[in-house]
This record gives sequence, C-alpha cells and structure tokens, in this order.
Amino acid sequence: MSNLRSTADFLLHDWLDVSRLAQRERFADHSRETFDAVFDTCERIAREKFAPFNRTVDVEEPHFDGERVILPRCTYDARQAYADSGMLSAAQDYELGGMQLPYVVEAAANGFFACASVSINTSMLTSANANAILVAGSPVQQRVFAANEFNGRWAGTMALSEPQAGSSLSDIATRAEPDGVDFEGDVLGPRYRLRGNKMWISAGEHELTENIVHLVLAKIPGADGKLVPGVKGISLFIVPKQLVNEQGELTGERNDVALAGLNHKLGWRGTTNTLLNFGEGRYPVRGGPGAIGYLVGQPGEGLKNMFHMMNEARIAIGMAATMLGLAGYYASLDYAKTRTQGRPVGVGGKDAAQAPVAIIEHADVKRMLLAQKAYGEGALALNLYCALLVDEGRTAAGEQAERARLLLEVLTPIAKSWPSEWCLEANSLAIQVHGGYGYTRDFPVEQYWRDNRLNMIHEGTHGIQAADLLGRKVRMQGGAGLMLLAETVNATIQKAMAHARLAGHANQLARALADVGATTKAAWANEQPEEALANAVPYMQAFGHTVLAWMWLDVACSVLSRDATLSDPQSVGRMGATDYFFQYELPRIGAWLQVVKERNMVCAQMPLDAF
Amino acid sequence: MSNLRSTADFLLHDWLDVSRLAQRERFADHSRETFDAVFDTCERIAREKFAPFNRTVDVEEPHFDGERVILPRCTYDARQAYADSGMLSAAQDYELGGMQLPYVVEAAANGFFACASVSINTSMLTSANANAILVAGSPVQQRVFAANEFNGRWAGTMALSEPQAGSSLSDIATRAEPDGVDFEGDVLGPRYRLRGNKMWISAGEHELTENIVHLVLAKIPGADGKLVPGVKGISLFIVPKQLVNEQGELTGERNDVALAGLNHKLGWRGTTNTLLNFGEGRYPVRGGPGAIGYLVGQPGEGLKNMFHMMNEARIAIGMAATMLGLAGYYASLDYAKTRTQGRPVGVGGKDAAQAPVAIIEHADVKRMLLAQKAYGEGALALNLYCALLVDEGRTAAGEQAERARLLLEVLTPIAKSWPSEWCLEANSLAIQVHGGYGYTRDFPVEQYWRDNRLNMIHEGTHGIQAADLLGRKVRMQGGAGLMLLAETVNATIQKAMAHARLAGHANQLARALADVGATTKAAWANEQPEEALANAVPYMQAFGHTVLAWMWLDVACSVLSRDATLSDPQSVGRMGATDYFFQYELPRIGAWLQVVKERNMVCAQMPLDAF
Repeated sequence: MSNLRSTADFLLHDWLDVSRLAQRERFADHSRETFDAVFDTCERIAREKFAPFNRTVDVEEPHFDGERVILPRCTYDARQAYADSGMLSAAQDYELGGMQLPYVVEAAANGFFACASVSINTSMLTSANANAILVAGSPVQQRVFAANEFNGRWAGTMALSEPQAGSSLSDIATRAEPDGVDFEGDVLGPRYRLRGNKMWISAGEHELTENIVHLVLAKIPGADGKLVPGVKGISLFIVPKQLVNEQGELTGERNDVALAGLNHKLGWRGTTNTLLNFGEGRYPVRGGPGAIGYLVGQPGEGLKNMFHMMNEARIAIGMAATMLGLAGYYASLDYAKTRTQGRPVGVGGKDAAQAPVAIIEHADVKRMLLAQKAYGEGALALNLYCALLVDEGRTAAGEQAERARLLLEVLTPIAKSWPSEWCLEANSLAIQVHGGYGYTRDFPVEQYWRDNRLNMIHEGTHGIQAADLLGRKVRMQGGAGLMLLAETVNATIQKAMAHARLAGHANQLARALADVGATTKAAWANEQPEEALANAVPYMQAFGHTVLAWMWLDVACSVLSRDATLSDPQSVGRMGATDYFFQYELPRIGAWLQVVKERNMVCAQMPLDAF
Repeated sequence: MSNLRSTADFLLHDWLDVSRLAQRERFADHSRETFDAVFDTCERIAREKFAPFNRTVDVEEPHFDGERVILPRCTYDARQAYADSGMLSAAQDYELGGMQLPYVVEAAANGFFACASVSINTSMLTSANANAILVAGSPVQQRVFAANEFNGRWAGTMALSEPQAGSSLSDIATRAEPDGVDFEGDVLGPRYRLRGNKMWISAGEHELTENIVHLVLAKIPGADGKLVPGVKGISLFIVPKQLVNEQGELTGERNDVALAGLNHKLGWRGTTNTLLNFGEGRYPVRGGPGAIGYLVGQPGEGLKNMFHMMNEARIAIGMAATMLGLAGYYASLDYAKTRTQGRPVGVGGKDAAQAPVAIIEHADVKRMLLAQKAYGEGALALNLYCALLVDEGRTAAGEQAERARLLLEVLTPIAKSWPSEWCLEANSLAIQVHGGYGYTRDFPVEQYWRDNRLNMIHEGTHGIQAADLLGRKVRMQGGAGLMLLAETVNATIQKAMAHARLAGHANQLARALADVGATTKAAWANEQPEEALANAVPYMQAFGHTVLAWMWLDVACSVLSRDATLSDPQSVGRMGATDYFFQYELPRIGAWLQVVKERNMVCAQMPLDAF
C-alpha cells in the first residue's frame, strides 16, 4: 500500500498538480492537506477492514438460505467503515452531506479499497445509483432515495441487463404499466407496476442495509399494449425492495422484488450477483400484480438518464482493473525479493556452490515485474487523467470545460478497456513470478487474476467498447474528438523533445499517432460500417497502447523536470517503465493496425459452417 | 468431440500420413483401421467416464481426512476405465503387454481424455515413471515396478522438486545413504535410506491403487558426508509407498513416505498435488531412519535418467494445453451458434424490430472464434508433428532418425510453451464469447482457463523453456538444429509457392524465418549470455509464432492438394485459420524480435530499488 500511496501522490501532485483545483470555487476549502487526510483515512480503513478479508470473501461466497442472502461478517464491517468514512458522498455538495471533493481525488482514494479487496464493498454502485437520481430524479426522489443512499442507510443497484439482453439493452422485456388511474399523483413519482427479470444485478439482494433501491430499466407499453422496439421505449424506475413513505420511513410493505438466483462466479465473489424477478407474485404488494416502481425523469429517457454516469462508471471499472494489476505487482515484487532460487546467467553450472540469489536478480523475472509496473502504473496514470477530465468538464471555464468533456468521450473506452486487458495480463505475470506457488490459493495472485477477468466483460464488453471507440467516438463531431486528442498528445511530444533522454520516444509516439490517424481514415474510407468495424478490437488495442505511450511520455517529462539526475530510485523506476513501454509495448501496434487499415475481412467473412 | 476427431483424423492421415509407419517392422500389425479402433475406444471412454465429471473433480477437490486422501468416485472409475483400455502401455512392446502403437497415435488418442477432463486422470505420470524405469532400471526393477505400472495395478509419480528447489534442481537437498553394509545386495537394486521433502508431487498420495511407485531424485553424500553441489550429485531412486518383494507382492510394510500436505490450486483440481516427507519417521520401517529406496541406474546419473522422457513429457503438457484450448473453442462455438443477441452492424438502430441474430454472426465474435481455432488446431498440428518426430527418431532409418531427433530437440520448447501461452489466451477468448455467462461456473470455460494456467508453470516454466531454446537448442552442434529447422521450413515454403493462394504467405514466412535467424545471431553477437538471454522469452514467443505459421502453411498445402476448390467447409475453415494466422498473428513477431536483436537491457538493468 505504501507503494501505491507514493505512486498516487506522484501522479496527482507532481504530475497532474490537482491542488490547483482548490482555486475553483467548488473546491475552495480544499488543499493538498485535505486530500492527504482523505488518503490517510482511506488507506487506513482499506488496510484494516478490507485487505485482511480479501480471501475470506472469495472463500465464503454469498449463499441463499431460502430466506436471506448470507454474507460473512467482514462484509458488514467493511461496508460500515466505508459508509462511516463519508466516501459514499465524498464528491457531493455540502448540502447533501458531501465533502465537495474533486472527482479525481475521490477516484484515487477509492483505489486504496479496490487494491485491498476489489469485491468486498459495493458502495460504488450505491453512489452511482444516487448520482443518477440526483441528475434525473424529482426533488422528493432525491431527498427520499438519493440522500438515504449517500448517508449509508440504504444501498443501491443498477438493474439494466436481462437474461436475453446484456450488451443489447434495446431488447429488454421488463414491462412497466401505470398503477391505477391515480398513478401520476404519487408524491414519490409516477407509480408503475413492473414485471420482468433482471440478470447480473450486483448487490441485488442482501441484508447489509434495511433497504435496497433498485434503479430499473423497463418499457412502458404503447396504447396497443405492445413494447416499443429499440432503446427509445426504455424508461427508468426506482423500485425499492421495501416500500417507503415520503419521509423515507419504511412502510413495512415488502415490494415484489424476489431473488431468483445467485450467480456463482469465477471471481469477484465478495459481491453478490443476482437474477431478480420483478413482479412475479412472490411478495404480492398492495393487492395488485407487479412490483411497485416510480418513474425517474421522462418516459423514454431511461437510457439517457442511466448512462449519464457512464463515463464515471467506466473509469471506475478501469480503476478496479488497475488496482488488481497493482496488487499483483506488489505481491509478486515482495515475493521476488525474498524467494531465493537459481544463480545469475553465466554462473549457473560453473559455480553451483554459490548460494542461490533472490529471483528478482533474474532478467526474466525483472522483465515480468517491469511489465507489471508499466501496465499498472500506466493504467493508473490514464485513469487519474480521465478522472481529472471529469472535474475539468464540470468546473473549468467555458471552452476548457468543453474540451475536457470531448477528450473524455474519446478516452473513456480506453480507460475502461485497456486496464481490463493489460492489468489482467499483469496478474498472469504475477502468478508466473511466483512459479508453482502462484498457482496455489496460499498466495493472493491467483485470486487477483480471477477477479480481474470480469473487467473485460461488465459495464460494456471489450467488443462494445471497441465499437464505441471506432464507430462513434473518433467520428463524432466530424472527428473533433480525435483531433483534440492528437493536439493534446502533440503537446506532450513537443514538451518531451526538450529532454534529450526522451526525444527518441517522442518521435516514436509521433509516428504511432500518425499511424492511428491514418488507420482511422482507412477504416472508414468507403464508409461501410461492416468493413470499418470488422477489426474494431485490434484498433482499440493499438489506440490504447498509443494512449498509454503518451501517458508514460508525459509522466517521464514530469520525472525529468523534477529530478533531472534521477537521484531518486522512484525516478529511475518511472524512466525504466517508460523505456519498457516504448521498446517492448508500443511496437506491437503495427500488427494490430495493419488489419484495420486493410479492412481485413478474414474473420468477418468466415462462413458459419467453416468453424 | 466429433470436431476434435475430424481435426485429429485430418492432421494424422491427410497431413502427416501416419499410416505409412505401418511399413516399419515395429508397427507392422498396424493400419489406419487399428488406429481408428483405438480412437473409437478412447473417444467413447472419454465421453462416458471423463467428460461428465470434469466439473465434479473441480468442485470435489482432494482432501485429507488425517488418514487417507479422499477423491470422488468418478476419479476411481475414470482411472480404471483408462487402465482397462490398455492405454497405459499402448506404445510399449508386445512382451510388456503393450500394443506397439506409434507414439503419435498414442499422443493423439490421449488427447480425447485431456479434452474431456484434463485433470481427472494421472495415468500419464504412471506411464512416464514406468518408461523411465524401462530405460534406466535393472531387469528386476522393470519386471517388478514398471510392469505393475503398465498393467494398472500400481501408480507412479515423479518426485523431483523440493520446496526450495523448483526450477533449480541442482539445489535439491534430499539425502540418500546406503542402507546397511549389504545395501548393494538387494535384488530390487542398491538399497538406500532417503530423507527429505518433495514439493509439487502430483498424485503423491491416494487410494486409487494398492501401491504408489515414487521416482525420487536425491543426493548420495560424499565420503565427507556432504552433498555434492550441482546436478552432478543427483541420483534416481524407486521409493515405493508399500514395500514389495521380488515377486511384486506387497510385504505389508508401509514405507516412510508421508503426506505433509495437499496443495490447493487455482485449477487442475482433479489431480492431487502434494508435499511429501521422505523418512521423517512417521512410518518407521525395518528399524532404521529414512524411507527405503532402490537406486535406478548409476549414481550421479539421476537427472539424465529422469530427463530421458523429457521431450515426451513436454509434448504431453503441450497437448494438455492444446486440448484445453480446443475444449474452450468447441464450447464457445456451440454457445455462439445458439445464443441470440444484437443485430448485424449496419442494422442496429435502423431496424431494431428485426429479430436478434445468433452472436456468431457478429464479426468480433467470429474473430474470437477464429483466433481460438488458429491457436488450438495449430497447436495440435505442432504437437502431433513433434510426436511423429519421436517415432521417427526411434524407428526411421539411420540419418533420417538422427535428423528427427535433432529437429525434435529444437522444437520441444515450442511444443510445450506455445500451447501453454496461446491456448490459455484461447480460453480467455472463450470466456469473452460467453459474456457474463462465461464468468459463471454454470459454463465450463472458466474452468478450462483456470486449468490451463498451470501449463506455463509445470514441467519447466516459460522462462526455463526460453533459456533452453535460445541458450542451448539453437546453439547446439554449432547451430545444426536451427539450420535443420530452417531447411525443413524452407521445404514447406517451396511447396507452398506452387499454390498461388499461398505464395504471399510463403514469402511472409520466408522473411520471418530470416528474421529469426538474424536475431539469433544478433543475440549472441558478443557471446555474452547475460545479454543474449535477457530477452529469451520474447525470442521464444517470436520463434513460436514463426513455427506455428510454418505449421499452418504446411497444413494449408495439404488442404489445397486434397480439395483445391475448397468444396468442404472444413477446408474453408483451415484456410481461414491459415489466413488469420498470417495476417493477425505472424506480424506480431517484429516487436518481440526487436528487443532481442538490439540486446535490450532495459529490464535486466533495472536496479532492484527502482521497482
């Protein structure tokens, strides 16, 4: 954790200089000192209430006794400690009980918890749920539901997917019908009856809190009783597990939301994942069929309202993947320093009587550690950079805010996908460093690897992110986002040119950037989405590696500006990771871009019977 | 399985033409018909006794009740069915009860079991153990121990590693001291007393058979009572769990081999993995301290005798990795054909009322399936090719046999490492095709991925294979092995040039081969192992991809020779996989080779305090 703290401190302060945000009105009470205090608290809680129980939540998987979902004691304690810390509403307004913390600091502070135990605590879902209600809900909904989530009394979920509709939300079939003639008169919002099944709902059922606030996507049938096809027909509803009154008191009526089953997963087992039945009649309520839900915002605007938080949700996934990557790095670094075996190359057979060395002395172990460092710390840089763009988009002045929002749109698929892919690879290397021991459950690295495998799947799969990037983000506003990114990367290249040590890297990045630009054009040369998007994932991989090279080059500029002689071992480490990234990683993009450029249809045109 | 059968049949018969082996005296009784009969039997047993229990052995992990290791019933049944099939001694002489089956056919036949459940059956260890005794043991040892392993009565282990010595066997500390003045007079072999700990011993303790024959590496102390440092001091011993007499009857004396603990693993849980104590006094035997063991072969030749079977052991690991890759491919292919979701690119928003399609219609899903096919079937081709080299090395005439042995030496690190790395990647893609369902334990793919993670670790880690390849194999006999490989690859290139469809691939492979050759020279240009081997793993990755491209090109030649118009969908599939490999995979080698060529020391020179 001390390693994470020093890296986060360097990135936030020496690199991103986030303390300058305190010059803005919203953050006027803040300073490096308040940020440090938040970090101290989070680091301590993570160390005491999260880290010691990471294996516990893996082994004592949630189970259902027919009445209740059973979770280990530590899950209650971790959630309570997190809620007590105020982190649930850290970025919210003072009036809401928040700290008005910059999002970038909140995201970094949450990193300590994810690094300690990524799945034990699902409070981030609660925050996201409450945030969505803040954006689209009525004042009463905000006061009754959002406020009781931010203060830790209730928990929240995001109920989007259905068994037949995961990536394809337009196909959801949950119906919401007006609940009686007076349905519009309910103080909690227009009242509907919902019926349908929701799949992959994290924290969908538990006893951690007295109530669970489900945010549910459903379709209101048209006059003909049919559901509107496509995303346009989707609306958003608050469906509390326990009904409440306008004062936020439980009425004692259980709503008709029933656990249909727990999903038993490869990893991430601290988080309950559920199939929920809405309105199947298990808990009949107020004499009618269906679960009672309250419309949030306007009918038909469900996706828009839910996806308002999407950039942050995707950064959060990127951060989770990153933290697992770093957790594996730290574990394998410790192991490599203490485990002795073998002799340096060149000694081997010749002087077998010499004592074995720590395995970190072996070049291949160093390679595996440096790759992990480059992946994990690079991913952290990217995610913090994106988190800062969230703050800039909200609090910077006019055009600067607009540019931040545009740049964030382009970078979000990378912030989510790149750590998911490469910090998973880092975790595999962490296992490899441990040898046979890494394959046992006596060491933590196999769990990190299992936990991390989720991140390429949830919150938009790799394929979805890639289609979003190449199909939408680099094309929107006539390519304005891509141009802005190029401009921003070029500024780093210019800055790096001033350092002789970095000129080669700067030139290499300039070539990579040009290649990505040319490839983007080539992909869309004939404006056929089938051809352009046939290789969207390789495109995203190359795009991601280019973005990460930019991150490392920019970080390296900060290193050299502050410590030109590399007197601090951490400076040497960051320069080493930069060199590694440019020499071992960036050259990979050629192979990925080639197939995009030539609009290679080998995969897309495979006949189904040829597999 | 039907998919595997048709692929294996194509590779063995249409590509490798293994039936021609029947022209050799040893295989004179064999023919395509006998090979098919073996496949039929193995496929049936694998389908009935292995496949249905793959999840069972994952869930009902071996445990120790203080007296016995408890295994599920299916493990007993699977082992018995395998032993009854005669596969334990399939490749052995008729006099030993074997079938004199070519090794390549035996290896392919064993593939059906690995594809069905890779970890349920550890008979391959028993065969390898018995084989080592055949090679180095006395006639009595062969009759008493090897014969009773081949007939399925007893099981065998390979006890090499120790807690402090995994990759570095020269550091083993197990001692073997002569057992009394008459120690050389024992009919079972020179009798020693062994004391030490052995780690990672698969099938080290169980009740599946009445006895377990441990093959143990230990050091005989010199006159000064000290162990000889290095590998030279290592000898090989038979240490039976239950002592036996010359007739192979149990004497009723339990030898002092005690289970110290079971390793709890990430996967491969059907196989018990143990820490064993030899001679710690838990089962005192014949009034002396130490476990009783019988020397096999000459003192000091332990490693040589144990490693006699190394090529085959490594091919077996490669095959296991391959079969897991193919199992995941078949599972995700089935899923992709039946799971509906989304619409083809270009339809999406425009016609959301159209019914969702099977996900195999999506280009990115096809890409993930074709990658799996290219990895899995390519790896199978390589492993069968290597297995055939084993047969050629043993039964071909003079120089041809010598060339086969030399080529096998060069290819073995690739046969083991390449499937371990890329069929693991295939398993990750199989999860991805399944989306959230792939992350649950309701589908088999997450287990394949966990099981497969072992293969880069055991039987020589990735790093060890790479050092063997670049440090030894491509340099031995003045580079004769590498030259022979180049010559063999060039023959394929020439053959491919005759097919217009393959000329581009052939040229690309020629360039890749030249690049690998130049890189090998550059790595060793100044004869410094520290520099040459600093990037041995990237070298092995590039070497492996080049070898696999060669395999696919050679397979493609066979496809076109037999079905020039590609009238069979399987031909289309093989050509598609070939194209995929050349267009998506082979271009990756540039990035790997570059760091080897420039003898990049960025990783090797990282100071320890900079991580």
